[in-house]
Amino acid sequence: MKILIINGPNLNLIGKREPGLYGGRMLEEINRALREQAAQMTVEIDFIQSNHEGVLVDAVHKAEEAYDGAVLNAGAYTHTSIALRDAVLAIKKPVIEVHFTNPAARERFRHSSLLAGATVGSIAGFGAESYHLALCWFYRQNDNTVK
Amino acid sequence: MKILIINGPNLNLIGKREPGLYGGRMLEEINRALREQAAQMTVEIDFIQSNHEGVLVDAVHKAEEAYDGAVLNAGAYTHTSIALRDAVLAIKKPVIEVHFTNPAARERFRHSSLLAGATVGSIAGFGAESYHLALCWFYRQNDNTVK
Amino acid sequence: MKILIINGPNLNLIGKREPGLYGGRMLEEINRALREQAAQMTVEIDFIQSNHEGVLVDAVHKAEEAYDGAVLNAGAYTHTSIALRDAVLAIKKPVIEVHFTNPAARERFRHSSLLAGATVGSIAGFGAESYHLALCWFYRQNDNTVK
Amino acid sequence: MKILIINGPNLNLIGKREPGLYGGRMLEEINRALREQAAQMTVEIDFIQSNHEGVLVDAVHKAEEAYDGAVLNAGAYTHTSIALRDAVLAIKKPVIEVHFTNPAARERFRHSSLLAGATVGSIAGFGAESYHLALCWFYRQNDNTVK
Amino acid sequence: MKILIINGPNLNLIGKREPGLYGGRMLEEINRALREQAAQMTVEIDFIQSNHEGVLVDAVHKAEEAYDGAVLNAGAYTHTSIALRDAVLAIKKPVIEVHFTNPAARERFRHSSLLAGATVGSIAGFGAESYHLALCWFYRQNDNTVK
Amino acid sequence: MKILIINGPNLNLIGKREPGLYGGRMLEEINRALREQAAQMTVEIDFIQSNHEGVLVDAVHKAEEAYDGAVLNAGAYTHTSIALRDAVLAIKKPVIEVHFTNPAARERFRHSSLLAGATVGSIAGFGAESYHLALCWFYRQNDNTVK
Amino acid sequence: MKILIINGPNLNLIGKREPGLYGGRMLEEINRALREQAAQMTVEIDFIQSNHEGVLVDAVHKAEEAYDGAVLNAGAYTHTSIALRDAVLAIKKPVIEVHFTNPAARERFRHSSLLAGATVGSIAGFGAESYHLALCWFYRQNDNTVK
Amino acid sequence: MKILIINGPNLNLIGKREPGLYGGRMLEEINRALREQAAQMTVEIDFIQSNHEGVLVDAVHKAEEAYDGAVLNAGAYTHTSIALRDAVLAIKKPVIEVHFTNPAARERFRHSSLLAGATVGSIAGFGAESYHLALCWFYRQNDNTVK
Amino acid sequence: MKILIINGPNLNLIGKREPGLYGGRMLEEINRALREQAAQMTVEIDFIQSNHEGVLVDAVHKAEEAYDGAVLNAGAYTHTSIALRDAVLAIKKPVIEVHFTNPAARERFRHSSLLAGATVGSIAGFGAESYHLALCWFYRQNDNTVK
Amino acid sequence: MKILIINGPNLNLIGKREPGLYGGRMLEEINRALREQAAQMTVEIDFIQSNHEGVLVDAVHKAEEAYDGAVLNAGAYTHTSIALRDAVLAIKKPVIEVHFTNPAARERFRHSSLLAGATVGSIAGFGAESYHLALCWFYRQNDNTVK
Amino acid sequence: MKILIINGPNLNLIGKREPGLYGGRMLEEINRALREQAAQMTVEIDFIQSNHEGVLVDAVHKAEEAYDGAVLNAGAYTHTSIALRDAVLAIKKPVIEVHFTNPAARERFRHSSLLAGATVGSIAGFGAESYHLALCWFYRQNDNTVK
Amino acid sequence: MKILIINGPNLNLIGKREPGLYGGRMLEEINRALREQAAQMTVEIDFIQSNHEGVLVDAVHKAEEAYDGAVLNAGAYTHTSIALRDAVLAIKKPVIEVHFTNPAARERFRHSSLLAGATVGSIAGFGAESYHLALCWFYRQNDNTVK
Repeated sequence: MKILIINGPNLNLIGKREPGLYGGRMLEEINRALREQAAQMTVEIDFIQSNHEGVLVDAVHKAEEAYDGAVLNAGAYTHTSIALRDAVLAIKKPVIEVHFTNPAARERFRHSSLLAGATVGSIAGFGAESYHLALCWFYRQNDNTVK
Repeated sequence: MKILIINGPNLNLIGKREPGLYGGRMLEEINRALREQAAQMTVEIDFIQSNHEGVLVDAVHKAEEAYDGAVLNAGAYTHTSIALRDAVLAIKKPVIEVHFTNPAARERFRHSSLLAGATVGSIAGFGAESYHLALCWFYRQNDNTVK
Repeated sequence: MKILIINGPNLNLIGKREPGLYGGRMLEEINRALREQAAQMTVEIDFIQSNHEGVLVDAVHKAEEAYDGAVLNAGAYTHTSIALRDAVLAIKKPVIEVHFTNPAARERFRHSSLLAGATVGSIAGFGAESYHLALCWFYRQNDNTVK
Repeated sequence: MKILIINGPNLNLIGKREPGLYGGRMLEEINRALREQAAQMTVEIDFIQSNHEGVLVDAVHKAEEAYDGAVLNAGAYTHTSIALRDAVLAIKKPVIEVHFTNPAARERFRHSSLLAGATVGSIAGFGAESYHLALCWFYRQNDNTVK
Repeated sequence: MKILIINGPNLNLIGKREPGLYGGRMLEEINRALREQAAQMTVEIDFIQSNHEGVLVDAVHKAEEAYDGAVLNAGAYTHTSIALRDAVLAIKKPVIEVHFTNPAARERFRHSSLLAGATVGSIAGFGAESYHLALCWFYRQNDNTVK
Repeated sequence: MKILIINGPNLNLIGKREPGLYGGRMLEEINRALREQAAQMTVEIDFIQSNHEGVLVDAVHKAEEAYDGAVLNAGAYTHTSIALRDAVLAIKKPVIEVHFTNPAARERFRHSSLLAGATVGSIAGFGAESYHLALCWFYRQNDNTVK
Repeated sequence: MKILIINGPNLNLIGKREPGLYGGRMLEEINRALREQAAQMTVEIDFIQSNHEGVLVDAVHKAEEAYDGAVLNAGAYTHTSIALRDAVLAIKKPVIEVHFTNPAARERFRHSSLLAGATVGSIAGFGAESYHLALCWFYRQNDNTVK
Repeated sequence: MKILIINGPNLNLIGKREPGLYGGRMLEEINRALREQAAQMTVEIDFIQSNHEGVLVDAVHKAEEAYDGAVLNAGAYTHTSIALRDAVLAIKKPVIEVHFTNPAARERFRHSSLLAGATVGSIAGFGAESYHLALCWFYRQNDNTVK
Repeated sequence: MKILIINGPNLNLIGKREPGLYGGRMLEEINRALREQAAQMTVEIDFIQSNHEGVLVDAVHKAEEAYDGAVLNAGAYTHTSIALRDAVLAIKKPVIEVHFTNPAARERFRHSSLLAGATVGSIAGFGAESYHLALCWFYRQNDNTVK
Repeated sequence: MKILIINGPNLNLIGKREPGLYGGRMLEEINRALREQAAQMTVEIDFIQSNHEGVLVDAVHKAEEAYDGAVLNAGAYTHTSIALRDAVLAIKKPVIEVHFTNPAARERFRHSSLLAGATVGSIAGFGAESYHLALCWFYRQNDNTVK
Repeated sequence: MKILIINGPNLNLIGKREPGLYGGRMLEEINRALREQAAQMTVEIDFIQSNHEGVLVDAVHKAEEAYDGAVLNAGAYTHTSIALRDAVLAIKKPVIEVHFTNPAARERFRHSSLLAGATVGSIAGFGAESYHLALCWFYRQNDNTVK
Repeated sequence: MKILIINGPNLNLIGKREPGLYGGRMLEEINRALREQAAQMTVEIDFIQSNHEGVLVDAVHKAEEAYDGAVLNAGAYTHTSIALRDAVLAIKKPVIEVHFTNPAARERFRHSSLLAGATVGSIAGFGAESYHLALCWFYRQNDNTVK
């Protein structure tokens, strides 16, 4: 099983950026912990981060070809990118929407997600744990002994 | 560790109710699977289901006294009950918002959650798996070997 | 044929409450007249009235098990209770929405019905006659000589 | 007792038009059944159908002079014609608003009725039965043995 | 000088229709008084009244050909007829918007006038006097000794 | 008969201010013409102009004591001053709302008049003629030979 | 004179719940102080607190039968319960709306009160003093030597 | 192949009406050019123009019986006529929405088309060319050598 | 203790102005009764009334320097004056918002108070009693034997 | 004559992506058919497709320098990209907006086009035929024998 | 060169008022620094501050007569005063809108500026530096050696 | 001191693009003048222009590392890019928002700035002078002899 973890705009600065909101761990640390969890689950994971909406659309398209699913933190584009929504709808692999914070509890312009309805589901507000729970979902889907 | 799982209105009919949306497994089956997962994690769980907003507010209050946290599927009250929001804000134990479906992808009147900002985080759209992932979070929080 | 007539909040005060709007006949008088009409139509009817949203949700659930349909005047909850909407959608028996007054002709917050689309149809504005016409519908549905 | 049944735009195509929504019975069939019901009730009925808003306004004016009341399915004009609302308010005979479907359960632009508050009441969602129930109301109003 | 006075829907019932709002004088009485005023001013006036939006559009077009201007009480169409607005914009003769009542002081759906910006100006709230003042305007425009 | 003509903010600059919109005649010229018209009608008129909302409220109060009515061009305050509306409602003398331009045809923030419903009626869009027509109304009200 | 003090959802937790907002005194302490004030005024008071909307509706109904008035802190239901509004409208005894904080100064969803217009008046923002002032009003109404 | 070209309100004045917006060619000239194009394509075309909404609804109904499709410029009714939308939905022949100007680029009240979703597609902004392109579509649909 | 009572626009006409809404007692009578109550409480009070927003802003500034608090009935400016809100926020003395009627129960444009959040609290709907209760608050704050 | 055909986000997946909506023909097939049509018209065409908003803005700028016009299907960016609107406004060559589906008939967030008013016109809802009709327009503009 | 600096409501309290927002320097200090800067630039400046909207309108009118331009911090009136907007539009001298804070980043009711479009430009968020930059603009406009 | 000047979409076309709005000077000319001003102030400046949102986000990130602040004209992205807002919030160097025109005075979709609250302040409406004033601010901040 191979999962692509896609991070959107400003997530390269996680750890430095508004640490009161997003916590103080750097993206590499977070990714290292995810890689460890994945290894235990015998899931392969790759990472991509970009501040470019178009690169993220391309990444979703690539998830269709080379992966079994994706974990997508579209950051600010969650609320403005119909293009990303259309990209997720255009592919058949499961995509999970994750967020560090719960956008529904922040500024009004973060309240609606254009990804909702296109993704399998959404996990928000648990900090880096949101990603770990997304991996759990892929693992549990895959695991015959579960459920 | 002791967790209270609180289910709101019409969830007693899960399995029979709009199965195209909510799946065909009955609440007891779902609860049995959750109990098995909990047993493996050495987490104790209790269940409460009610169609009464006031009973749910009371249940949140009880979570403060007798539990280490709660998993709350407030169903339709998610979108209309300021009382439930205030209840979650009034207690100090972590509460996780879960949903079978992703409300953000359904009718307009299900798009805003009054619980957002009061709960730790939200997991939506994974069917009964939403509950399992919530238990995973409690387990991972508790587990020293994780993270 | 067995029909459940469900009355929501403040309808216990009908006859005393804002008689200019709702008329001066008491709930028992109205129910007596309905029972007479039902008797002529060889339809059995039961009544339930509650000011509690949860009790009304429970009553809709009960209609599924023990009745052939329901007549529902959800009163104020018509405009605020997604839980009642979900309850009506969760059952397969026909439910008719009735109102003494026509909510669409009153305050703005009574203009939208959350029950619309979940019920068979709606009859509003005829005072207690709204209930009588609802019984007519059940009778005509049932009657081979009609239509 | 003499009642005018007024049908608005596109109702001449009923039976052919979107039968999934409106059913497959033609307007003449429906009118024939209404005439039979009226005959049993010793009520006289006349029919008018027009796609022209002005003709419908004229028809409402005529109801004042030559009829004891009207049953009005204003179709699409329900939601856009202040002129029809003013016409109903301008006369003193009772007018009942009827609809095949429940507009409140359809597209947003059908959610508000400009007729509400001008008519005696509204009956919606029962297909052709909506008209039959309207006739029942006139009959029951007229009948000394009822109520 | 020749002026066309155009009256829209339900104005044929003026005097009988909601007299508390519109006063108790019949349209013919009002027109007679206008004809007297016009005679004194040596202005010729013609009247047209229709409940049909299309007839009113046609009338505005005719004003262009055979009159020096028009006084238009579009009634309910004031608030819904883009077609009438376009008609007034399509001609070059001055058109004055008049109303018995002041629509801005009535129901919300009467607050915006689609005619505003297309007409020379608007006179509202003076009952039948609104028409008289409109004639005054034409007279004063025409009169060299005034202003 | 004694009428107070009240002019609001920036009307002291009429003639110099945005002449494309308001015309090029100065306030004194306009007032002189009104005085002439009034003289012919044997109506006495006084003028007040102020850029201060409070002074205008005071002026409306004064109209109650010393005049038979008022002509009020509240300018920009038309759209923002609930205080002026309350002032007009607080007195019993007739007040006519006038405007040079038709606010309903300008920027969105000029579309609603807080004076509507408090005044007798409104005359808008005729430039200085709006004032003349208002005087006509007072004259015609007063004149036994009219109507 | 006998007054019923009705407290809504989460007010049982006052003193523990968000003390920065609501203060640190427990409900019993507050009620004790109210009882002392009432004793001085020779007013009898009873208390009811519930997290259930239906119980609050029932309590308002009871106020009609057994009390001279009520002080109602409907908490979160202030903003969502049309049922409570209808209950207050359905009775003839005076009801005063009170709040610890001023809802108009908090989240947007607390800005509108459905009770407004049904109650005698509203007192908000003074903490527990809001209740004391409400009792003052009942006392002053009752006291011949005042006013 | 036989196509009906339906023109709505004020299009009879095209060429004279606001030529800056709609161009200076008269309707007859435009129709002549369309007839020439149609002749080359061996398509038969008929024209109807009316300022009456009801006549346009009737025309759409007629297109079903006697034509292979229609080109509809509903003018102002595009934005207000649910009746026309329902008419297009009621028939099975393809209808193309055309406009001289692009309504989405004009006043706010022209931004939404009630025809959208009922028609095959929409062509707007090309002046009289919008009609020619609509004919092209019918021709290309019909032509085996194309596509 | 010294309190300034500030009355806004049109309150000089209280007693004469819309007596059905505001009661028939004149401002001087009301002030006399307040002075008597204040005397009993050994509180000094001064009064200011103005129809000028700027004078009211100045008065709030003066309350900071020469008084221990203020009672402010900003009348119509409650809903439109950000300047008054800023004035109250700019000073450190407690200000209480009072109203004769409950604005939340009147026209839509009186529903939001710009003062909310700037004042200590709000008392509305009790007629002149609203002022008396405000004085009670100052008295009770000051009184050691209370609370 | 040289035309640039610009395709926006996710249009590289056409044929595979939601075929129920967009049809099953791949972008290359569609482009081949367009090239054939262009060849017959002796029009040269080039294609560009990108998921990057910035690349599309650049492409519009390039159209100004090296082409006689452009056909632009901005896909999801139609509804969110003010940058693309500004780009089209910044150049002087004609740009035609095309869409496979009619966005006005889809989700609410696709209802407004930021391109409207910047482009020559819009053609929507005809599938790949929308592009062909756009080419027809360029051809007819160019062709002396037409019109 | 002579510039008038106009300060609106509550700016007399700057330094004392909400210093966290507006800083702790008094208006006189700020004005002294501005006078020094002006002296260096050989620009003459005068100051006016008022809490009265009408005085500010008058001041803008005076700027036309006796100054080469104005710097206007309208404070709270920025968001509510159409009268001030009209005053700025009525004069021909350049006016610059300045603010201590950036209103677009504060409460919703400060988000729109009625002055926008009437002034030359706006400088906001730099504290007292906003005024200095405004003077720079006047200086640079005037200075031949610049630009 | 080193400042980065960041220009967003379509600003590469300044001088050619809508010169009535943006003026006729090319970006290079404007940049040359800025470089001259900077040289006099002994400030170093670099320029970046891109039509790609992602490149602009990257540029803001770079400002954190290699510059003392930034001047940002985000063009159309000002109104749609939450990603840019988050980027500015993620860094600690001061960023000034500048605009050629005043967006608050243009189309509705340009009225809100997502950058507001993230930047130090905003300067808008002065054409290229907006940039010069931004440099002035950096210079004055830096200069000990100023203020």
